[in-house]
Amino acid sequence: MKIPFLGLPDHPQAKVALIPVPLELSTTWLKGTKEAPLEILKVSSNLEFFDEETSLSPHETFGFFTFPVEELPLDLNSALIRIEELVEEALKAKFFPILLGGEHTLTLPSVRAFKKFYPNLRVLHLDAHLDFREEYLGTKINHATVIRRIYELGIPILSLGIRALSEEEFSEIHQKKLSVLLAKDIWRSFEEALEKVSAFLKEGPVYLSLDMDALDPSLAPGVGTPEPGGLFWQELLLILRKFVEYHPVGMDIVETRPIPGNPFTEFLVGKIILKVSAYLAERKLEF
Amino acid sequence: MKIPFLGLPDHPQAKVALIPVPLELSTTWLKGTKEAPLEILKVSSNLEFFDEETSLSPHETFGFFTFPVEELPLDLNSALIRIEELVEEALKAKFFPILLGGEHTLTLPSVRAFKKFYPNLRVLHLDAHLDFREEYLGTKINHATVIRRIYELGIPILSLGIRALSEEEFSEIHQKKLSVLLAKDIWRSFEEALEKVSAFLKEGPVYLSLDMDALDPSLAPGVGTPEPGGLFWQELLLILRKFVEYHPVGMDIVETRPIPGNPFTEFLVGKIILKVSAYLAERKLEF
Amino acid sequence: MKIPFLGLPDHPQAKVALIPVPLELSTTWLKGTKEAPLEILKVSSNLEFFDEETSLSPHETFGFFTFPVEELPLDLNSALIRIEELVEEALKAKFFPILLGGEHTLTLPSVRAFKKFYPNLRVLHLDAHLDFREEYLGTKINHATVIRRIYELGIPILSLGIRALSEEEFSEIHQKKLSVLLAKDIWRSFEEALEKVSAFLKEGPVYLSLDMDALDPSLAPGVGTPEPGGLFWQELLLILRKFVEYHPVGMDIVETRPIPGNPFTEFLVGKIILKVSAYLAERKLEF
Amino acid sequence: MKIPFLGLPDHPQAKVALIPVPLELSTTWLKGTKEAPLEILKVSSNLEFFDEETSLSPHETFGFFTFPVEELPLDLNSALIRIEELVEEALKAKFFPILLGGEHTLTLPSVRAFKKFYPNLRVLHLDAHLDFREEYLGTKINHATVIRRIYELGIPILSLGIRALSEEEFSEIHQKKLSVLLAKDIWRSFEEALEKVSAFLKEGPVYLSLDMDALDPSLAPGVGTPEPGGLFWQELLLILRKFVEYHPVGMDIVETRPIPGNPFTEFLVGKIILKVSAYLAERKLEF
Amino acid sequence: MKIPFLGLPDHPQAKVALIPVPLELSTTWLKGTKEAPLEILKVSSNLEFFDEETSLSPHETFGFFTFPVEELPLDLNSALIRIEELVEEALKAKFFPILLGGEHTLTLPSVRAFKKFYPNLRVLHLDAHLDFREEYLGTKINHATVIRRIYELGIPILSLGIRALSEEEFSEIHQKKLSVLLAKDIWRSFEEALEKVSAFLKEGPVYLSLDMDALDPSLAPGVGTPEPGGLFWQELLLILRKFVEYHPVGMDIVETRPIPGNPFTEFLVGKIILKVSAYLAERKLEF
Amino acid sequence: MKIPFLGLPDHPQAKVALIPVPLELSTTWLKGTKEAPLEILKVSSNLEFFDEETSLSPHETFGFFTFPVEELPLDLNSALIRIEELVEEALKAKFFPILLGGEHTLTLPSVRAFKKFYPNLRVLHLDAHLDFREEYLGTKINHATVIRRIYELGIPILSLGIRALSEEEFSEIHQKKLSVLLAKDIWRSFEEALEKVSAFLKEGPVYLSLDMDALDPSLAPGVGTPEPGGLFWQELLLILRKFVEYHPVGMDIVETRPIPGNPFTEFLVGKIILKVSAYLAERKLEF
Ligand SMILES: [Mn+2]
Ligand SMILES: [Mn+2]
Ligand SMILES: [Mn+2]
Ligand SMILES: [Mn+2]
Ligand SMILES: [Mn+2]
Ligand SMILES: [Mn+2]
Ligand SMILES: [Mn+2]
Ligand SMILES: [Mn+2]
Ligand SMILES: [Mn+2]
Ligand SMILES: [Mn+2]
Ligand SMILES: [Mn+2]
Ligand SMILES: [Mn+2]
Repeated sequence: MKIPFLGLPDHPQAKVALIPVPLELSTTWLKGTKEAPLEILKVSSNLEFFDEETSLSPHETFGFFTFPVEELPLDLNSALIRIEELVEEALKAKFFPILLGGEHTLTLPSVRAFKKFYPNLRVLHLDAHLDFREEYLGTKINHATVIRRIYELGIPILSLGIRALSEEEFSEIHQKKLSVLLAKDIWRSFEEALEKVSAFLKEGPVYLSLDMDALDPSLAPGVGTPEPGGLFWQELLLILRKFVEYHPVGMDIVETRPIPGNPFTEFLVGKIILKVSAYLAERKLEF
Repeated sequence: MKIPFLGLPDHPQAKVALIPVPLELSTTWLKGTKEAPLEILKVSSNLEFFDEETSLSPHETFGFFTFPVEELPLDLNSALIRIEELVEEALKAKFFPILLGGEHTLTLPSVRAFKKFYPNLRVLHLDAHLDFREEYLGTKINHATVIRRIYELGIPILSLGIRALSEEEFSEIHQKKLSVLLAKDIWRSFEEALEKVSAFLKEGPVYLSLDMDALDPSLAPGVGTPEPGGLFWQELLLILRKFVEYHPVGMDIVETRPIPGNPFTEFLVGKIILKVSAYLAERKLEF
Repeated sequence: MKIPFLGLPDHPQAKVALIPVPLELSTTWLKGTKEAPLEILKVSSNLEFFDEETSLSPHETFGFFTFPVEELPLDLNSALIRIEELVEEALKAKFFPILLGGEHTLTLPSVRAFKKFYPNLRVLHLDAHLDFREEYLGTKINHATVIRRIYELGIPILSLGIRALSEEEFSEIHQKKLSVLLAKDIWRSFEEALEKVSAFLKEGPVYLSLDMDALDPSLAPGVGTPEPGGLFWQELLLILRKFVEYHPVGMDIVETRPIPGNPFTEFLVGKIILKVSAYLAERKLEF
Repeated sequence: MKIPFLGLPDHPQAKVALIPVPLELSTTWLKGTKEAPLEILKVSSNLEFFDEETSLSPHETFGFFTFPVEELPLDLNSALIRIEELVEEALKAKFFPILLGGEHTLTLPSVRAFKKFYPNLRVLHLDAHLDFREEYLGTKINHATVIRRIYELGIPILSLGIRALSEEEFSEIHQKKLSVLLAKDIWRSFEEALEKVSAFLKEGPVYLSLDMDALDPSLAPGVGTPEPGGLFWQELLLILRKFVEYHPVGMDIVETRPIPGNPFTEFLVGKIILKVSAYLAERKLEF
Repeated sequence: MKIPFLGLPDHPQAKVALIPVPLELSTTWLKGTKEAPLEILKVSSNLEFFDEETSLSPHETFGFFTFPVEELPLDLNSALIRIEELVEEALKAKFFPILLGGEHTLTLPSVRAFKKFYPNLRVLHLDAHLDFREEYLGTKINHATVIRRIYELGIPILSLGIRALSEEEFSEIHQKKLSVLLAKDIWRSFEEALEKVSAFLKEGPVYLSLDMDALDPSLAPGVGTPEPGGLFWQELLLILRKFVEYHPVGMDIVETRPIPGNPFTEFLVGKIILKVSAYLAERKLEF
Repeated sequence: MKIPFLGLPDHPQAKVALIPVPLELSTTWLKGTKEAPLEILKVSSNLEFFDEETSLSPHETFGFFTFPVEELPLDLNSALIRIEELVEEALKAKFFPILLGGEHTLTLPSVRAFKKFYPNLRVLHLDAHLDFREEYLGTKINHATVIRRIYELGIPILSLGIRALSEEEFSEIHQKKLSVLLAKDIWRSFEEALEKVSAFLKEGPVYLSLDMDALDPSLAPGVGTPEPGGLFWQELLLILRKFVEYHPVGMDIVETRPIPGNPFTEFLVGKIILKVSAYLAERKLEF
């Protein structure tokens, strides 16, 4: 089923591709992220399409192409393969892909596809959680282990906003010398944190993985595990701007969980897509 | 985490064992059945423990033992193995097991365990759906195929209340000569349907699998796929009475989906447990 | 705060008085009945004021007077005294009082006031529960004991629709020879049940206490303890008609619990008020 | 924005056209019917496409074409003109149109379009309300007056299921000799009512206008004004079968109001579309 | 239907008049603002009446008069005329009127009435949106065009908090030299923004139009289009204080949309009324 | 019914005791705090058990013991006596007790028990309200008077975060020279406020009473009376750290009100418990 972003027909020279990924096989507490891609696209037609910060209308100058919302296989491996195919398809077509989750696990196949096109890919990871467990409830690939699986591909990662993690994950930070900016580091000095982000972004093509629970729950209540102390809107905008300033190649927005009767978080995801696209359009980036 | 049924301590000579099975790996539309076992047990202390139909208090004369609510493995096969172990454990301890789902898939490992104790086991299947697909979204074992997998074990099945099925499932009814009482058959004559149930029950030890969507949505709104035209309370009671009259050995109650702020369906499941237990107690059954 | 029934000004010759009683001091599970009187009055302006069964518009031919919604004392005894005062005031003014609860406990002071005006008062009690405990959670006067307290005043009671009660309450039915029509009696023969109601109503002036959980939860979901197997709309109408046919003197409608976003039960209470008033108007009753 | 019914591509020889009409300009109490067409189409992919009553899969043998969900003008007259255009377009293309509301007002422009193709058109009107006011809140065309406006076009109407109306509307029934089957008439004898429906249907081409509040609220809770005492599922099916038996030319399904978190009513509308289509397919009707 | 603010009887020398305006004819996404006036008044009795910032109890020293909640005509023009009449009535009675919306469109007739009493009226407009479209969905007067219609009356306007607007509206800011403080301007320096507000307020009598979506959605979730990056509580209080400091003549609070089960936004509106009234009382203003 | 914190078995050398207190007898507006203790414990197993701020896992190094959730008597005095007993029991067993409310009234019996063990006890009171009324709705002991009743025991109190109080309460602050930090004082300078807290804490053993409405509603929406302008997460953490730095002896967390479908506030309470426990563990406190 195809529900185009903003309710508009696909732009003939679209530069941004939206890839709905209704994956939900490993959530263990509050369920519902599977519905998020559909709901994000559904409410997006209520957005104001113009961005007053850049004075741009990215739907005109830049253009969007929306992939259909397709039912994924129930078997995890088959689902991951299908996601990897979709991302490769988008990259071959020279799009800047934005995946709409769905659970965080989808970042693994997405990053695998990107790495074929950008061998020295790096990942900027915004999240309340480190997602760096060795395994979780008996399986190796799920939303709680996904960043570790990406780390094992030899991809440099900077994790930002972390404020809930296990003792094992915490000790890995020191053992493996992971690049992590805890929420409390950001509280101490957002400017310093932003500088570390810049230093990381400078080194090569970057994929942004945005777990919506990185944001403060007052801004994004519709997530599976709302942790207090997250990023606020203006902080997010500054990070997104930084991301676009260097070498952005694609991103995902994951773990949105629609709350019946309160579509604010889905609406916000649409707004984030427009913001990133406006920043990209401003820099007249090609992919 | 242990939440005892009715909020009471386990009875020392308990005859009924409640086994929470928070399995949810294959739901594709409205999610949340994973929370059902916990919520059913949580609200059960608000039930009136006495049954005025039989003039019995099954929690005293018969007794309940509640298994803990345990987090199942995320890997389907490991989860099924664990469920089979739990049911075997309950059967070895001479309980009448009642599994609380969770998705319908759990009936497969449950029936596997029962068949070891009752080689000529038969299954009475109450559902709005036939759950007899050959495969669903690329996998063989899930809530839409579970009855077919049980059929393939050579277990006789009577399916009752069916009012939503695929063309393929419908043609299998004739090809495989399945015993099916469609909802429309029940509407025509509930008495005739009940006689067919009796005929089926007579033939040997019976396991009852109650998908809550067999009931009319006005009675049980908290399910994943509410289909109009289901069983009403008094019809259900007559079927449960019949089930107990012959050779009942255990049952499951599956596909409950808690609706925030409306715990009526979970409360109803507790009431069904009490009703079946009162009927069992009345007949002074031993297992 | 005054919110007039149907949103209309009080009728100068009003015959029916609506007395909001936002009492909630003893609910133990799903709370919220305190808000019911306000919400019932608030939604009532959306009712169609004409009754097509009697071809009457009771708001014109009969008239309504609405008491203000007043905050009751937190101390139970003071609250009961205040309720008794309000009912006496209404009876002195020759109204047919309809109390809008609030928890069932309010029936005790209401009946006390009525008994002063009708010494041979009898009570027709529609409920899923017998409310006949000797005590509940350490107190003597609450929603679970209220009918016993009324019984102790020597008032004849017929309880109807009962389908959830304790073992102790059940044994009292036989010991005290209570008049009780269990739900299962009504299922067997509604006609027979209605005859027993008539026989009871014939004997003197009757006060009707309608606990909304007497109704089937599919009809009245907004209650604190929804029990399957209750009365349906047409059965309720027949009972209300019977009630009006003999010697009705007043009534209460209790235990409504507003569900946010689903005001159907409050709307239904308004409809019940209109129905009773139309039946009263048809018989041109004076009080 | 196009969301195809059942999530399937339009059938090349589709016989049924689904026309979403998100009209909501005159609702006065519970709002939200504007979202209904979108939500009905969104959840429809979760329906079982096969109909076990007729053993047909109407999406294959008959075929569906879905019009896009388009934003209507805010000016009522412009909106009505646009709806009339859409229906004419569908009729010219030889479709059996099913309009998905949206408020009941849309029946006026729809019937206007139909009357051009079927000069002796008649309307079977299922509703809890007569919708026959002369005016409502100062305007002539709205959900409370729509049937009167159609009556004034000289179109014969049979209204069925009525259980809430104003005194003025009630007196019009006698003055204008309207054909009305009140809910209480149906309660007395559904068979007799069905015969009167047959007699009406025999006389010419019929358009069915189904206000979802005609159904019992236990079956269809998602409406703006839920009135107890409505039609049940099996009664509705019998009426739909009758409708198809004679000379059906099109229909609308209106006044659905999505309840956040409880999509049962939208799902039911999808099921009604499938049922009618299966009945049409069975009779191999051409338009 | 009259529901007095704070649940108190009207003050005999009331200085503030609350005018409920349940207008909702042009909302296109999340509906429900029509219910807001009723709900705001309903929950207001739960407010603490005393203001600790000014050490004043405005309900005593200043006094409130509440207009009834009246059903408006469905025809937009008639509704606007009625609103204008109500405001004129309040102004003639020397009240400081506070209109409670309802959709933003009501500001047009309100300002028209004020202009008759204050020919050099100016409007301070707090909103996430500019509401300055030339037309919207085919009509000239609605919530998306209302500020432009007021601009065309020659009334000076300062718009504050804007963070969602169309390209056309954005270009009008420059062409028409509109006074606009975008949200991003406020983020850069709230102090500077407040100075510009002061400069604007100095020039003459001011009407404040407060669209609740001007506030941050974390503070006021109950609106139709929640945009991140809005005003916080302390910022709003500073603006309200400034407004009262110069020449305040009246205000409206619009676009509140009640969320079932979460009345925080309606409660907040009540608190805003108390705050403004306390500030007015502190300055002992006469009107 | 026992639901252990974090879903873990009680620690054999537990230092922190969690005491669920489902007291709700005097709430007058939004009800539901009675369910909070159960829901807080239920969701706590979804917390990350490790605290990254202190690098400690308090469930291992410190240990939790959870009291069962027991139904309290309906009679207020009996309920208060039972709560006092429970707290004494915990203090005798050398626990650091954390009571989980339930309405604020429970602080009175809790403090009475503590005073027996710590005669020079002082109370740090975080709240939006002063709770210092002489009486409320005719009773002396309830959530609106509880702090005054504690004051009358001669216990020094510092109230912090107050932003809603009655005129009478406000005048008592001056007459009785109460120690109160209004929300507006905190806004002016959080650092200064924190110094006053330190000065208070230095003087002796301190009991912390945390009314969840002290927090900003954007952080803790699930309360009975959400007042804008409250404490944010990092401010709360600084206050909790201060509390632990001096002489902490126990605490309560009250007035949580579960919102169906949005368990964020209950989850937050669990997080607060972990934070306080980690701070206590870090200082290796004994009790
Ligand atoms: Mn996360
Ligand atoms: Mn994550
Ligand atoms: Mn099923
Ligand atoms: Mn099933
Ligand atoms: Mn009851
Ligand atoms: Mn009762
Ligand atoms: Mn209708
Ligand atoms: Mn209608
Ligand atoms: Mn706005
Ligand atoms: Mn606006
Ligand atoms: Mn408080
Ligand atoms: Mn408090």
